[in-house]
Amino acid sequence: MRQVAILGIGQTAIDEHWDKSLKELAGEACFLAMEDANLRKPDALYVGNMLSPSIGGQNQLGTYIADWVGMWGSEASKVESACSSGSAAFRSAVMAVASGEVESALAVGVEKMTDRAGKEVTAALATAADADQEVEQGVSFVGLNALIMRRYMFEYGWKHADFAPFSINSHSNALHNPYARLHEKIDIDTFERSSMVATPINLLDASPIGDGAAAAIIVPAGVVRSSTSRPKILVAGSASSTDTIAVHSRKDPLFLTAAYTSAKKAYAMAGIDQHQVDLFELHDAFSIMAALSLEACGFADRGKGPALGLDGKIGINGEIPVCTRGGLKARGHPVGATGMYQIVEVAQQLRGECGETQVENAIIGMAQNIGGSGASILTHILRKE
Amino acid sequence: MRQVAILGIGQTAIDEHWDKSLKELAGEACFLAMEDANLRKPDALYVGNMLSPSIGGQNQLGTYIADWVGMWGSEASKVESACSSGSAAFRSAVMAVASGEVESALAVGVEKMTDRAGKEVTAALATAADADQEVEQGVSFVGLNALIMRRYMFEYGWKHADFAPFSINSHSNALHNPYARLHEKIDIDTFERSSMVATPINLLDASPIGDGAAAAIIVPAGVVRSSTSRPKILVAGSASSTDTIAVHSRKDPLFLTAAYTSAKKAYAMAGIDQHQVDLFELHDAFSIMAALSLEACGFADRGKGPALGLDGKIGINGEIPVCTRGGLKARGHPVGATGMYQIVEVAQQLRGECGETQVENAIIGMAQNIGGSGASILTHILRKE
Repeated sequence: MRQVAILGIGQTAIDEHWDKSLKELAGEACFLAMEDANLRKPDALYVGNMLSPSIGGQNQLGTYIADWVGMWGSEASKVESACSSGSAAFRSAVMAVASGEVESALAVGVEKMTDRAGKEVTAALATAADADQEVEQGVSFVGLNALIMRRYMFEYGWKHADFAPFSINSHSNALHNPYARLHEKIDIDTFERSSMVATPINLLDASPIGDGAAAAIIVPAGVVRSSTSRPKILVAGSASSTDTIAVHSRKDPLFLTAAYTSAKKAYAMAGIDQHQVDLFELHDAFSIMAALSLEACGFADRGKGPALGLDGKIGINGEIPVCTRGGLKARGHPVGATGMYQIVEVAQQLRGECGETQVENAIIGMAQNIGGSGASILTHILRKE
Repeated sequence: MRQVAILGIGQTAIDEHWDKSLKELAGEACFLAMEDANLRKPDALYVGNMLSPSIGGQNQLGTYIADWVGMWGSEASKVESACSSGSAAFRSAVMAVASGEVESALAVGVEKMTDRAGKEVTAALATAADADQEVEQGVSFVGLNALIMRRYMFEYGWKHADFAPFSINSHSNALHNPYARLHEKIDIDTFERSSMVATPINLLDASPIGDGAAAAIIVPAGVVRSSTSRPKILVAGSASSTDTIAVHSRKDPLFLTAAYTSAKKAYAMAGIDQHQVDLFELHDAFSIMAALSLEACGFADRGKGPALGLDGKIGINGEIPVCTRGGLKARGHPVGATGMYQIVEVAQQLRGECGETQVENAIIGMAQNIGGSGASILTHILRKE
């Protein structure tokens, strides 16, 4: 397999983009990535998207977006694995270039969620869970995460306020990210006083939906020139794993087995261990997921995830900086696009483009994207050469 | 890129499977392929499906089906490109193994369409077309194909009856395929008397929807042993191309540019030309598409596609046997599964398992799968070693 590298990146702000269609959002991110890469027509396009068939009335987004951005004749398809669709599209691009089948591939994650009423979006998001065994019982996506969080608090003795540092950190970092959905500083009081969504998850445990798109162009590493102003960003590790789709089928619902497995594979591929990771864009769709992701990837012992936040280890200058651009919690969570935002943000860190939230001397960055309640998890490791 | 081969295949009958869920259908095809390959747990699963998010209430089919068939921990995702989703999943499997990222991959196409009312299915199928520019005008999927057929008849002077051989051939071959949706012999009179759907397309120009699943397991060619009873089936060519999504945007709506491009690439990869193809599973969703596909792939000159049928060249013993198992027209068209049925059928021909419709001495078989009205087209060439 040949080594691949990221040649260009692009992203739109995450917002309620009522004036822009899905293809316009995707196009904006794609054109920015093409301009950044100085490559007008990649050989292939992989689109990560979850909700367009159910709330957007449009399928076949591969061709749809390839057509819009002028990639006529290119190979194109859509990849879907719920909230991990973005990184699944990225992995498809990586494998296409690695296989030698194409010489360049564009991966874009895009989602347009805010045109529809909240209850329609809630119903559409529930299609990530098991329709027969979970949704049929009336449990929503946040409901499933609430069950996990409550059990975790009971099992390990944490109280709700102990999760506050995850949200406070994400909101604080997002203040310096112009693409972020929320620019609101919060503190422990705001966190504890926030309205309840599904006990124990309140509004500040939960990430906001939004409209947005993020893109990256992948090429064989050999064709990228490294320069001081623009270091070469290698895809050093890429792995994907799954768990049962229904939470109740898992031997241990408090451990993200697919995160553990995909991180382990990605570490092995990159030839590193977790201590060499300089920053970690994790999937804080809900604050409980931040804790579980850190534990599964080896940054904290089982049941000790919240301690990393409480001990100040997740900040920009901490032991393992997480969600440096705001994470899902404050940068926003346009579901099928999120995985690509994470990739783009890690690349920005390695390039040193993150200003106030720049992690000093960042060489290795990791992104982990979770589909469903831990059902499908992809881990990517990027390294500056 | 390393060469890959098909190690096992499986398929369900296409029918109105009201007693089987989507995952049961997919599972049936997957288990048959696993048994055929004697491989219980492939490294990765790629699911081709179009309609589950819009009419099935279930997303994340990669994990959903991996979980159901006991592939816990495997990599899994869903690939969608409308009616070409099946072959797009197959191509993902090919690239995953070719890249060296995985050592074995299972591709399954599955669709469950008949639980819903016809108008819901028609609306869901229309999401393959351009929502803003085509569907917004009220044109359905069959409507778009009717516009293409009418223009073709006007431009080249063919009458409706001239397309009959395509349907008659498919129905005749399906009689010997136990997995086919329709087992009804038709003739020119039945064809001409059939009820109109969207002029000039009548019921016997159009393929029936259905529920079904088909699967194949891909591994590096080096690990497959060839035997007399079970020859090695190489994936000799694999290519994908796109055109504009809206038919009216094309320079020439009567030429399948993406079929031409993907066939050309697949021929080059396999090191052959069209004269070496022993059989061709083409995408006769509508009879007009059979003609256009044959022309784009070099089997007939522009505007001459119907002559191949009229001159008796598409039968089992003809110059270029097509739809040897019944094609979309009579084997059936469970949209996201169709591309995988084509692959499985070509493999069956190369193995010599097709009984009454066996093409003698078949060495090279081709499958072409069309998404939308020519928007996304994949061509695969299999070769017996």
